[in-house]
Parts: sequence; structure tokens; C-alpha cells
Amino acid sequence: MIRVAIVGGTGYTGVELLRLLAAHPQAEVVTVTSRGEAGRRVDDMFPSLRGVVDLEYSDPASGGMEDCDVVFFATPNGTAMNQAKALIESGARVVDLAADFRLKDLNQWQQWYGMPHAAPELVEEAVYGLPELNRPAIREARLVANPGCYPTAVLLGFLPLLEQDLVDADGLIADAKSGVSGAGRNSALATQFCEAGDNFKAYSVAGHRHQAEIVQGLASVTGHEIKITFVPHLVPMLRGIHATLYARLKNPNVDLQDVYERRYQEEPFIDVMPPGSHPDTRSVRGANVCRMACHRPGGGDTVVVLSVEDNLVKGAAGQAVQNMNIMCGLDERLGLMPVALVP
Amino acid sequence: MIRVAIVGGTGYTGVELLRLLAAHPQAEVVTVTSRGEAGRRVDDMFPSLRGVVDLEYSDPASGGMEDCDVVFFATPNGTAMNQAKALIESGARVVDLAADFRLKDLNQWQQWYGMPHAAPELVEEAVYGLPELNRPAIREARLVANPGCYPTAVLLGFLPLLEQDLVDADGLIADAKSGVSGAGRNSALATQFCEAGDNFKAYSVAGHRHQAEIVQGLASVTGHEIKITFVPHLVPMLRGIHATLYARLKNPNVDLQDVYERRYQEEPFIDVMPPGSHPDTRSVRGANVCRMACHRPGGGDTVVVLSVEDNLVKGAAGQAVQNMNIMCGLDERLGLMPVALVP
Amino acid sequence: MIRVAIVGGTGYTGVELLRLLAAHPQAEVVTVTSRGEAGRRVDDMFPSLRGVVDLEYSDPASGGMEDCDVVFFATPNGTAMNQAKALIESGARVVDLAADFRLKDLNQWQQWYGMPHAAPELVEEAVYGLPELNRPAIREARLVANPGCYPTAVLLGFLPLLEQDLVDADGLIADAKSGVSGAGRNSALATQFCEAGDNFKAYSVAGHRHQAEIVQGLASVTGHEIKITFVPHLVPMLRGIHATLYARLKNPNVDLQDVYERRYQEEPFIDVMPPGSHPDTRSVRGANVCRMACHRPGGGDTVVVLSVEDNLVKGAAGQAVQNMNIMCGLDERLGLMPVALVP
Amino acid sequence: MIRVAIVGGTGYTGVELLRLLAAHPQAEVVTVTSRGEAGRRVDDMFPSLRGVVDLEYSDPASGGMEDCDVVFFATPNGTAMNQAKALIESGARVVDLAADFRLKDLNQWQQWYGMPHAAPELVEEAVYGLPELNRPAIREARLVANPGCYPTAVLLGFLPLLEQDLVDADGLIADAKSGVSGAGRNSALATQFCEAGDNFKAYSVAGHRHQAEIVQGLASVTGHEIKITFVPHLVPMLRGIHATLYARLKNPNVDLQDVYERRYQEEPFIDVMPPGSHPDTRSVRGANVCRMACHRPGGGDTVVVLSVEDNLVKGAAGQAVQNMNIMCGLDERLGLMPVALVP
Repeated sequence: MIRVAIVGGTGYTGVELLRLLAAHPQAEVVTVTSRGEAGRRVDDMFPSLRGVVDLEYSDPASGGMEDCDVVFFATPNGTAMNQAKALIESGARVVDLAADFRLKDLNQWQQWYGMPHAAPELVEEAVYGLPELNRPAIREARLVANPGCYPTAVLLGFLPLLEQDLVDADGLIADAKSGVSGAGRNSALATQFCEAGDNFKAYSVAGHRHQAEIVQGLASVTGHEIKITFVPHLVPMLRGIHATLYARLKNPNVDLQDVYERRYQEEPFIDVMPPGSHPDTRSVRGANVCRMACHRPGGGDTVVVLSVEDNLVKGAAGQAVQNMNIMCGLDERLGLMPVALVP
Repeated sequence: MIRVAIVGGTGYTGVELLRLLAAHPQAEVVTVTSRGEAGRRVDDMFPSLRGVVDLEYSDPASGGMEDCDVVFFATPNGTAMNQAKALIESGARVVDLAADFRLKDLNQWQQWYGMPHAAPELVEEAVYGLPELNRPAIREARLVANPGCYPTAVLLGFLPLLEQDLVDADGLIADAKSGVSGAGRNSALATQFCEAGDNFKAYSVAGHRHQAEIVQGLASVTGHEIKITFVPHLVPMLRGIHATLYARLKNPNVDLQDVYERRYQEEPFIDVMPPGSHPDTRSVRGANVCRMACHRPGGGDTVVVLSVEDNLVKGAAGQAVQNMNIMCGLDERLGLMPVALVP
Repeated sequence: MIRVAIVGGTGYTGVELLRLLAAHPQAEVVTVTSRGEAGRRVDDMFPSLRGVVDLEYSDPASGGMEDCDVVFFATPNGTAMNQAKALIESGARVVDLAADFRLKDLNQWQQWYGMPHAAPELVEEAVYGLPELNRPAIREARLVANPGCYPTAVLLGFLPLLEQDLVDADGLIADAKSGVSGAGRNSALATQFCEAGDNFKAYSVAGHRHQAEIVQGLASVTGHEIKITFVPHLVPMLRGIHATLYARLKNPNVDLQDVYERRYQEEPFIDVMPPGSHPDTRSVRGANVCRMACHRPGGGDTVVVLSVEDNLVKGAAGQAVQNMNIMCGLDERLGLMPVALVP
Repeated sequence: MIRVAIVGGTGYTGVELLRLLAAHPQAEVVTVTSRGEAGRRVDDMFPSLRGVVDLEYSDPASGGMEDCDVVFFATPNGTAMNQAKALIESGARVVDLAADFRLKDLNQWQQWYGMPHAAPELVEEAVYGLPELNRPAIREARLVANPGCYPTAVLLGFLPLLEQDLVDADGLIADAKSGVSGAGRNSALATQFCEAGDNFKAYSVAGHRHQAEIVQGLASVTGHEIKITFVPHLVPMLRGIHATLYARLKNPNVDLQDVYERRYQEEPFIDVMPPGSHPDTRSVRGANVCRMACHRPGGGDTVVVLSVEDNLVKGAAGQAVQNMNIMCGLDERLGLMPVALVP
């Protein structure tokens, strides 16, 4: 039985980890920390966990993580970088669901996240935890940087095109739409029901943190610079990301469906739908799946890829458990709920 | 392995049965029928089942249910009553998720459902499948009438009060609110997004089919007539029923919390929350749980019971699987997803 | 032209006042105050007002209200009681949309609102601004306590029954459901999109501030004590209150439809629907209307009244403008948008 | 007083016309037709119109439109083309809110709408009713083809760029998102609450009728062919379109903000927001406004224009009333509700 600790268990990725791990046959959550809620029962905060999770939040300062096999950080940015080192040295595997170890370029990281990095040497060591791209490295990793929700959907959608150099890499467009849970469990005014409900808007058009992560991921595949315009939008729904990706084909004589199907045929959590499909976000609600379809409207040279995921599952906690499974040598699919909740 | 057939697998209870049974370790769906969709792949209609359900809809006339151990009817009212007899005689256990066998009084049934009953003798035999009330009979049943979604929430909420004769039984009020999926998967105008969205209304105040079922269930407990005013409302959400129940206490010196906790302490799917709680519907989203809390506002003689469930799970498909487990001598909890999807 | 000031113009009732008054042919908003947003353009905060409201928020301390004819307080509870006196003495009419002057019983007020009252003498003078009940007094009032959103829907629904002593007044039930904007424009976690969306729950069952206001209003009509159980619920919609009211008839031989139609036949903002109707909240979205229908399920002695309003209009800002019109001797309907936004 | 007839008054554009015209000081609706609902009171179908619209639906065959000044067709495609001629000849001005007269190329029209055109000569005469583009022609028109909802948002967003030849016209992208009311008031399964709610998807990526209309509109401005990839998406909200437009600048030394502000400075219903803005759809809910903002992420050569409207107002009924005002020589703004409903 893998002993698991969750640092920061009061947010949506934290409670999602608890939901998924409750169904995991070979993992057991032994500690959930929260500075603000220490001493409170977890199921008092999340009644959905009544009868399932019999733990209190513990103070992170009071320890309890030393003898864990895997530690998940479901904390705000800037927390894991201060604590990961000690945990790794004590033998734990660490998966950070925040952004501390996602960007290899420290200047960029510091610019986007507004603080100096506390553990540059770990940045170098950390493996970017997109299994479909980095599975072998994840297997050996002590520290995994779990990808952001937008980057997961965008990278998985673009990978087959860029790996095979099929499109112009300097005019990519990612028009992405996210459910509100992507903003986390906090009290911001902009994500109040009466602000975000029955409403739709773009945000951060001038620049979003996930853009740097997307650029890094795509460039790691092409081996040269790429240019992408990334525009995120807020959708009045709870979960789900829909990325609509645009690129221009270099050679019109390519069978895109075949490219995608081949690329992902062995992947347990990627579903390439039949030609002409329009994946909807609910088809992955609660499931660790990225479902996609590719189109060439009018048979022209513009490719449109539709890529959907549940931002809290394949875009966060589910991918984290997938990484844990890989790191621990388990069947990658263990504990990952197979069927989405529809309707 | 229990061989399962689902008759009528294109509605929300049908796809919910498929979702739940996909995770059931001792049941296997071998046939899903649909008159209208025969020949179409199930996962073409419900992409959430891609990679999980590898079946086509079959024509109900073409057989395939003879050698099944359990047959679920997820059909419109009036279907199961024509087919159940042959299936039972061939040795299958039948669970009807529609209303054909719920009402023992045939006149009432015919009045509410607007057709003559095709199998009166089965009505007599059928067991009303509320495990918390009828577990022993369900264990022996060949035919189970799976309760309606409203009746499940209302009966479970009132049972402790009526079993112990704690309240006036002639002035009960059930103010119930349901998510839109309770209306089924069809194209009615009233349940269009632009009709039901950002909107709230009562309906069928003059009389709703489920009232007769509730009256029958409550009277079976009291042994005498009861009077209840039942007002259903439509909530702009996908899943969930919230029943707010009102009754007048006969004796103010009763410890309601204790009454409820004792009544349900052995029940795996009933959660009596601590005093002062307000269960919300999302805390049971996708889970086979009825969560409840009881209040006495101002310490007066009016009891207010709050009872929530997922209308498609504990109010339909989950309860049906629970009944299957009981009928087949399995652990009642098998295959019933433990944790609700929050948020 | 009536010169209007709005104290506290950053909440939902504030912006709703601005929307309504923009269409008012005989009123002009000359000042909108906000302590926190002083100096910021109003239409920067609310782009829906671009091109319509050409004002900056002003600091309440910097004056500007002295020469106004009408001052609306759209502030948190406890503000108006400190400022109303000076304004009234300077000749302004004051309408408080908060609760400072709603309860005549100071002890009750202090108990529910958790502070000592700063202006007891004004409490006595203030007129409870429900035009359908107090129109003559409002006409003469210098200070109007604009009713709460729940009390408006509940009182208007019960008035005809209690005025004519048609029901038992000691067993009333008001099961009320509100859209999320009733909680105001703030950053509370409970009203986040991901907490309140696709979800339904009761709250404050043990006791809600509006109960005292409802009891006071109903007792003012009966002349004796009444008992009511009031249970509010949160609905995943932006605007709207639906009150489902239950009472027991004293005499079954009464024509309820006639009672309601007669009572409200001269009222411009009350719509008694035909027998058998189910008013929905969207039918009053944005409109200053309370729409209702009464039922007697099964012809029994339980009356069910369905009463809907837009909590921000007839339940707040619209009623405030209605009160202003009455106080200023104008046509009561001026500036009150006639048609709800459907869908 | 302008006498108005509405042909086909049971859909969302029909009821929206009724809402807007009820507030119009110089227009009066004298006839509303519906084949299916003839004889039924309009306010029985739409209770929001109780006390406002005192009409019954009339059978279109029974006449009543002969002496009207303006006739609006709020009918399915293929209706107006059969009736417009007689009305025009009798002296009425006609505004068709459907697509019968939008496309000048009859072959294209017949291909997209699947029927032969019944009035080719009227196609030639009809004026495309986008006032910001065609105001002078609309003023003289007997027949106006009211633009589609998507084309309105997309054309208004791209016009300033294409009129001044600022961008590559062969690689335009319009990623558009619409609320569900854009699909009309019908019983389609795909727009059921439980299908479209808490969900997001693209649709018709292979080709959508509005693309031809967009291409025609843009080409009329450039004078040469343009190429655009148009991808519509369905958003779980009632009203609103958000178009995110992408184009590549030919010359980076252009002040886009200035271009947009100048282009629209005289337009009463176009709002160019300050630099850095993100218009949201609710800011135009119920209002006849197209609000937009333009961005150059990272200062690069990709322009991103955000353009929002209420699909039922500026995208349909509001624009139709605007056209009526222009055709009748009235102040263009008459009767067009100024303030959006927020929240």
C-alpha cells in the first residue's frame, strides 16, 4: 500500500485527489494538511467525503509526511519549492500540482509568478509530468511538475502536428475555454455565481501564465521556437476545458485522422474520436481522459483541433495520480475512474 | 459474473446504469436494447462510454435476454408490464425503473398512468424496492418495482417520524425540488435549456403521479391513512433532489437527532448529518446516498427534515443496482461509486 | 426633475437602482457614493452602464447629498441609521434598502443584526415600504424602510388570506427559494460559482433575519400573533424568488381565486394568474412585478400559494423606486420597466 | 404611430420583438400571427407579457397585415420569401429576421438552406440590414434582410480592420461562442437543459450557414475574396455571443485603438472599450449594443478582437427595430432599451 500525503487539502484539486484516491486500490491517504483548517475534520468541510475519508486536517508544521511514499502538493504557487527538497531527501516522491517546477527558465518563472525561486536546482531535476510526452522520465523521477490544466489540453492537441512538423509553428492559435473551477476554490469576486453565471468572457488576453508553459512544451517537441496566441475564456460551468486549436498545414496531402490515431493508439487516457466529431466537455466530466477530434473545414489548409478534458482530473488531480502510478511502477490506470458523469 | 440486460438504454437512467455497472466487479452488461437505435453503437450515442462499453443497441424483438440473470427496465411506463412475465418465467430477476409495478392499487395506477394494466398478477407479486424499508422481501423477489425519485427522498425522510408515530400524519407537507434530469431524456419544450435555465417554478401542484406512491409508502408504515401535500419544483441543475419536509410533532420531548441516527445507523447509503446541517444536492452528485438533516426551528413543534439524493442514482439507477445486489446475495455496496463529484 | 443620491452604489441593489433610474423620465441620479471606490468611474466597474451613467463614485464624506430630493441607501445594514437623520432634516426623503428601519421591535432588531440601534426615534417614524399594504403612509413618509426580498414575496402571497382571516394563522409555512444575487455582491465562498452552481440547498433553517420581518408584517394584518415556519433555499440562478406558501383553510367554502383577484385588482405590480397556473421566476426577471397563483391540491383544506418576484426589483430596487414615486406624488409606475427579459 | 405586424410570434425573436416594441413610443403591434397557436392569447404563452400585450395570435391566412406599415418576419427560413412580395406591393416595409434574403448568391443560398428560392428578384432588391455598414440603403429599403446573430458580431468586429486593409484577409479566424437561445425556441434534444447545461462544445466545424453570410459581408468591404475559418460553440447560457477574432497585421505600426474608436465614434450601438478590456456578454444582456475591445498580445502582429452582443437583441430583434427606425425616419434609438440587465 502506497502511503500518500496531500499538502493543502482544502482546494478543488485537493478534494479531487481525495475523491480519486479513495477509489485507488493500492494507495492510502494518511495525511492531509491545511494551515488554516488544522484540527477540522475533512468531511466537515466536504460532506461528500462523509463515510469515506476519516481524517482531520493536520498542521503542515506538525509533520507526518516523513514516512510517506508520495507527497502531493495541492497548494498555492510558491509553497512546494520550499518543502520539496526535504521530502525528496527523506525518500518521498513528490508531485507538485502547482506551478513551482513547470518552467525551466527561471527568469520567466520569476516574471510570471512574481517571486524569486527558492529551489533552482530542483527546477532542473523536476520532470514535466505529461505522461504522453515524458513517460520514461516520469518513471524515474523523484519530483514531478504536474502540468497546468490549459497546457495539458493544448499540448496534447498540438503534439501530433508539431512532432511531425506538419504545420507552420509560428502562427499557432489556441482559443481555450475553461469552467470556473479552474480558478480554484477561493473567494474572488470575478468567480462569484452572479458574476460568472449566465455570462461569458475572455480574460488575460495580454498574457497568461500558462502561455509560457505551453510555449516551453511545444518547443521541446519542435526543437525550435514556436509562436502561439493563447486566449483563455471563462465558461459558466463547473468543470471542463475545451481548447480549439488552429494551425496552418504545410502539406495538404496528409491524413490527419491517421496521424492522430497512430500517435495516441497506445495511450490509455487519450481518445481520438472519429472524423467529424465534436467532443463535449461533459463527456470527460470526472474522468481522466483527454478527448479530441481534428477537422479541416472546407478541406482547406487550416487544421482545427478540438481537445477537451476535465480541468480537475486530466488537467490536475487525475494526471497527478496517473503520474504517481507511473512513478510507483503500478498499472497507470489504477484508481482512475473510468466513466464520466453524464448528464 | 451476473449477466445483465438493460431494456431501453437510451435514456438517462439507462446510461446511468451503464456507468455504474461498468464499475461493478461482479456484473456484466451483455445486452442493451433500444427500438429506435438498434444497430447503433452505444458509445456513439454516449461518447462518455467510449472505451468502456463495447456494445450496440439491439432490437428488443431480437432476443438476447433469455439467459440473463437480471433484467433492468429503463423504459417508459407501460413497457415492463408487457414483458416482465416471460422474463421471470425464464428465470431472470427483473427490476423495473419505471412505474409499472409501484402502485398496488390498480385503479389508482390506471388513473395516473392513463392505461389499463397488462399484468395485475405481477403487481401483487412485485416488491417495492426501497431497501431501507423492504430489504428482506427484496432478497427473495423475482420482480422489484424500483421507487420513483421523489418518493425515495420523501419516504426516507419521513420514515423515522411515522414509524414511531411522532407526528400528525394528516398534515404532512413535502416541498420537493428536482434537477431537470428527473424529467428524462426527451425533447420536451419545458425542459429546454432556455426554458428551464436561470429559472425556477413549481409544477403539477394540482396532483403528481408520485403523490400516490408516497401516500402508499407512508401508509404502509403507519398502517392507517395519511395526508400529504406534495409540491414538486424544477431547479436549474442537472441532477439532484432536495425534499424539504414539514410535520407537526405530537410530543415535543423527543430527541429527533437520536431517532434518525438510530433508524439509519446500519444503512450503508443513508447519512444522517450532525444537528444544524444543511445537506446540499452536490454532496451526493453521482453517489448512491441519501443525506439528511432534521431541524426544529425555534425549538417549536414543527419538524423540518432536509433530504437530498441524486435522482439518477439513489433515486433511480443506483438504487436499482443496490436492489440487484440484494436480490443476488451480493454485498449491497458493490459497484456503487462511493464519492460524489464535488464541485 | 427629482434629484437622487445613491449611497453605496457598488452592490447589486445599487447598480439595479442605476439601471432603473436611467429609464426614469423624472428622476436624475446626481451622486453615487462608495467609500472603497471613490474616484472610480461607475461605468468602469459596471460596463453595462457605459454611455448611460456619466458619474464617478464620490466619497460619502465629501457631501453632495444635501440638495437631493431623494436619497437611497443601498448600503450594508447599520449604515443608514447613522446618516438618515441629518438628511431628513435637510429636507431629503430617504429610502433605506437595508434593514435598519424594518423592525419596530428594537430588541429583536438588535438581536438579529448584532448591534445597538443608533436611531431608535427614526425606527418609530419609518414607514414599512410595502405599497400594497401601506400606500397612504408611504405617501407622507420622510423615511421608508424598503422591505426585504423574502418578506415582499411572502407577505404579498399571504396578505389576502390573513386579512380576511381565512386560514389558521399559527401553522403557516413559507418554503422560499432565492437566486444567488439575494446574497449581495461580495466575495463569500458559499456563493462562488463552483459552490452554488448546479447545486441546491436550504440554509438558516434554525432562523433567518427575514423571519422577524415576516412575522411583524403578518401580525400587523391579523392584529394578533401568528406562527410561521420559514425555510429559505439557495437556487443556482441569478435573480428571482419563488415562495411556496402553505396554510390550512378555516372554511373550505371560499373562492380563493376571487379573493386574490379582488384584493389586487387595483395594484399595478401584482399579477394574480388564472387558476391552475405555475408562475416562474423568469416571467418577472428584471420587472417590478409580483406574480402569484393559488391552488388547493385535491380540493382539500390546504392552500398552496405560489408567489414569484425578482429579488432585485420588486424585492429591492424596483420597490424602492416605486416608493420614491409614491413619496413624490408621481405616477407609481414611472420608470419601472414593464417587460421581463425572457428567455 | 407605426402599425406593426409580427409574422411568427412564438419563437424567441418574436417574443423579443414584442418586449422591445412594448416600450417603443411610436410603434404599435397590431397583429401577431402563428399558424399553430392561432386563437391563443399571446400572454398565455408568454406570461411575462401579461398586462403588456393584449393580443391573440391570429392565423396568417386570415389577413390583418395589409394596412401595416412594417411587417417583421420572425419565422423559420423559407417563409418570408413567399409572402414578402405581396406585402411590399401593398405598401408595407418588410424586415425578415430569417435568412431568406441575406445571401446574394442564389446558388449558395440554395445549397445552405436546401430549397429553391421563391423570390430571386427580391433577393436582389433586399438590403442587408447592418446599419453600421448600410445605413443609407436601409433608409430607402422596402425589404431588409436582418443579419444573422454570428455575422453581426463577426462583421462588426472585423470591419475596421478590413475597410482599411490592415490585415491579411486570407487567414482570418472567428472563434465564436453563443448562448443556447441562438438555436431558437424548439424542442431539439441537443439544446435540452441536461444536454447543453454545464457543458461546452463546438459544432458545425465542417461548415455553418452563417459562414457564407460572413464571407459575403467581409468581401463586400474588401472588394476581393477573403478566407475565414469560422468555428461556432455552444455556451451554457441563455443569451449572448462572444466572438474572438484573430487576424495578422500587415503593418505593425498602426494604432488599433484609434482605428476602432474613429470607425465607430458616431455609432449609437457600438461601444469600443478602453485598451486592455475584456467585454463580457452580460454587459449587453437585453441591450442593443455590440461591445468590443482589441488586443495585440505580446505586442506581436496578431490582432485579437473581442466582440460581444446579445444574440436576440443586436443579433436579431433589436437590430430589426433599429432597422425599422431607420426605414421610418425615426431616431434610430427609439424604443431600444438602454441598459443591460446585470447581474
